[in-house]
Amino acid sequence: MAYETLLISLEDGVMTVTLNRPDKLNAFNTVMSKELIDFFQGVNAMDEVRAIVVTGAGRAFCAGADISGGSGAFQVWNDGTAPQKREARDSITLAIFNCLKPIVAAINGAAVGVGITMCLPMDVRLMSSAARIGFIFNKRGMAMEAGSCWFLPRLVGMQRAQEWVMTAELFGADEALKGGLVRSVHAPEELLPAAQALARKFAASTSSAVAAAVNRRLMWSMLGAQDPLDAVTLDLQCVGYLAAGADAQEGIKSFFEKRAPAFPLKPSKDMPPFGPWSK
Amino acid sequence: MAYETLLISLEDGVMTVTLNRPDKLNAFNTVMSKELIDFFQGVNAMDEVRAIVVTGAGRAFCAGADISGGSGAFQVWNDGTAPQKREARDSITLAIFNCLKPIVAAINGAAVGVGITMCLPMDVRLMSSAARIGFIFNKRGMAMEAGSCWFLPRLVGMQRAQEWVMTAELFGADEALKGGLVRSVHAPEELLPAAQALARKFAASTSSAVAAAVNRRLMWSMLGAQDPLDAVTLDLQCVGYLAAGADAQEGIKSFFEKRAPAFPLKPSKDMPPFGPWSK
Amino acid sequence: MAYETLLISLEDGVMTVTLNRPDKLNAFNTVMSKELIDFFQGVNAMDEVRAIVVTGAGRAFCAGADISGGSGAFQVWNDGTAPQKREARDSITLAIFNCLKPIVAAINGAAVGVGITMCLPMDVRLMSSAARIGFIFNKRGMAMEAGSCWFLPRLVGMQRAQEWVMTAELFGADEALKGGLVRSVHAPEELLPAAQALARKFAASTSSAVAAAVNRRLMWSMLGAQDPLDAVTLDLQCVGYLAAGADAQEGIKSFFEKRAPAFPLKPSKDMPPFGPWSK
Repeated sequence: MAYETLLISLEDGVMTVTLNRPDKLNAFNTVMSKELIDFFQGVNAMDEVRAIVVTGAGRAFCAGADISGGSGAFQVWNDGTAPQKREARDSITLAIFNCLKPIVAAINGAAVGVGITMCLPMDVRLMSSAARIGFIFNKRGMAMEAGSCWFLPRLVGMQRAQEWVMTAELFGADEALKGGLVRSVHAPEELLPAAQALARKFAASTSSAVAAAVNRRLMWSMLGAQDPLDAVTLDLQCVGYLAAGADAQEGIKSFFEKRAPAFPLKPSKDMPPFGPWSK
Repeated sequence: MAYETLLISLEDGVMTVTLNRPDKLNAFNTVMSKELIDFFQGVNAMDEVRAIVVTGAGRAFCAGADISGGSGAFQVWNDGTAPQKREARDSITLAIFNCLKPIVAAINGAAVGVGITMCLPMDVRLMSSAARIGFIFNKRGMAMEAGSCWFLPRLVGMQRAQEWVMTAELFGADEALKGGLVRSVHAPEELLPAAQALARKFAASTSSAVAAAVNRRLMWSMLGAQDPLDAVTLDLQCVGYLAAGADAQEGIKSFFEKRAPAFPLKPSKDMPPFGPWSK
Repeated sequence: MAYETLLISLEDGVMTVTLNRPDKLNAFNTVMSKELIDFFQGVNAMDEVRAIVVTGAGRAFCAGADISGGSGAFQVWNDGTAPQKREARDSITLAIFNCLKPIVAAINGAAVGVGITMCLPMDVRLMSSAARIGFIFNKRGMAMEAGSCWFLPRLVGMQRAQEWVMTAELFGADEALKGGLVRSVHAPEELLPAAQALARKFAASTSSAVAAAVNRRLMWSMLGAQDPLDAVTLDLQCVGYLAAGADAQEGIKSFFEKRAPAFPLKPSKDMPPFGPWSK
């Protein structure tokens, strides 16, 4: 995994991904798009990665799409011949949505346009007190991208989502926290350690990696589902399958032996053969 | 646009609509229903209107359905021959839901029954500290109307929605704010100016009217959508279409020229030829 | 209604259901599962019950599934021959979801695993300051059950839901309240009286039992519905049907006569002959 626009490092089961075009405020371009998709799809096969932190190099998180070449940057998704084709940046949303590992965003600086919309399908967002966020589409004559029309109102409620998008103003950490967009606000130098500490909790060896993957995906895949019966039917299958598996057996055995569990199963090969991850 | 039950005025791109039956606490009747539907459908063709404020004349916002003639008022929706026909008051919900302009409710006084349910598909609600809200259906032996069973739990969460409906009590601004039903609470004399100031931000000439219309509708239309793939597919088309359009070109040009944008496109004729607004 | 694992008592229209295996911390077993389903299905025919409170005997609410027999407890749902069959514990979710009476959970002590997931389709949750909650599935190698993947993110937002499930830690009343999982926190000895007082408000004789049943079910059944048009179409029918009925007539008559209403209709026989409760 060698990338031009991303730095990658692994420690204690937590992979930290750093958007790395600091001289461009980590502006999003075609290369970064391809590399992020490649990363979020490829990481599912890496059992040594139990949780992911995403942050930015330098003073920004991601200042939005790189428009140094004009609006052509946006037209990679509009070649006329295949307008519904899922390509480029938009597929990042689905790669993140479908990921088998929990993801923590550490918003260290400006997160504007795609810089913030790419964070919405991540699980938890932490923010630097010095950072600023902007859903600035109306001031650029642009549509909200990356499925953000689906995610944003579900995360912060329709009232706040509409206000942020209709004013198109930048806002700070207090407003983001009040709106529930971010989980917590940290001093700049404490942000990344806090995000990594939370991710290490997610990655604890006393937690089943397969259960984590199943449960992360169950919640995201059912967020739009019409009927709770669909959820009950699917989780009934999952409960049965996992209960018969080695992790649940070890979970119960270790509980009675009053010791920490050591779970044997791996997401790369032990996911249930049904469910949204199997498609 | 001359109405019997509504006052209309336009200033700085903001149209203020005042429910105007003050001697009846602006009670909702058949005429008001028809006029509100006519207004919210007709305003889509008025490019000079960039945002809408809805308020009430006198001391109430809207005290509910006018039952001075008995429960017959409710039976306009139940002529027996066509129970599914979308008529009268209920279509207000859809006219507001489908509107191309952002809408701010200024709840200046009592908002009870349809007086509050008509506010739910609006985008942002501001409230007077002297106002009271009531979902009083259970105390009248009535069903929740105007699609409020769909909107209310999405806006304030199921727990609070059930408590408000099951107690059927009137509550004040503190409770409404705590529950996230309203964005902010204002002294009575400051309410309308605050709502209009927010609407003027939405209506700023440096904001694309077409992008505002597209983005407002994308969020509402995807609030119930099952799969984020539907959102990504639709917004991919919108991003491509708008990026190729004159507003996005002006957005980028003005950005590099360090000046305010002057967007040429008009919702009345420049909306994308696909998407929920095109049906 | 004589149960082995439940205590039942009725006062002022409020039925209090107490999980009653205090020496086992009210651990959930097959008998409790069957009895809860039987109760929540049977109570719909009992017009004298207007609201329900659920609590636990002794120091726990419910410590989770009874695993004293090993993980076999989970495999009642996985006999291999019929994995989609809705059985045992999972159907509690649907029995609660479909119930015609408003339900208040009084979480008096530890609520872990199914102990908390069974509370999610209830309407309002009150919590003792001494209680603890845990979505501990990842630490047992288990999948989230009882449709909790559908309910939890809708109740507390995806960000908090993922954090609680991914850390799998126990948390206290402050965190539960901050997250909106519970409505309010009470001193241990004040919890049950507070829950019963709220339920008595729901059960007031000045509130229509049929309207309460219709409105509770309208909100839950539309929480996952794609299009508000579905809600408007259904509530239009309900408004028409109820407006023509004896409760609405009495609601209006009593309003004009300035007296408390005395509603004649009964959920056991007067529900509308259409809608999700009629299936």
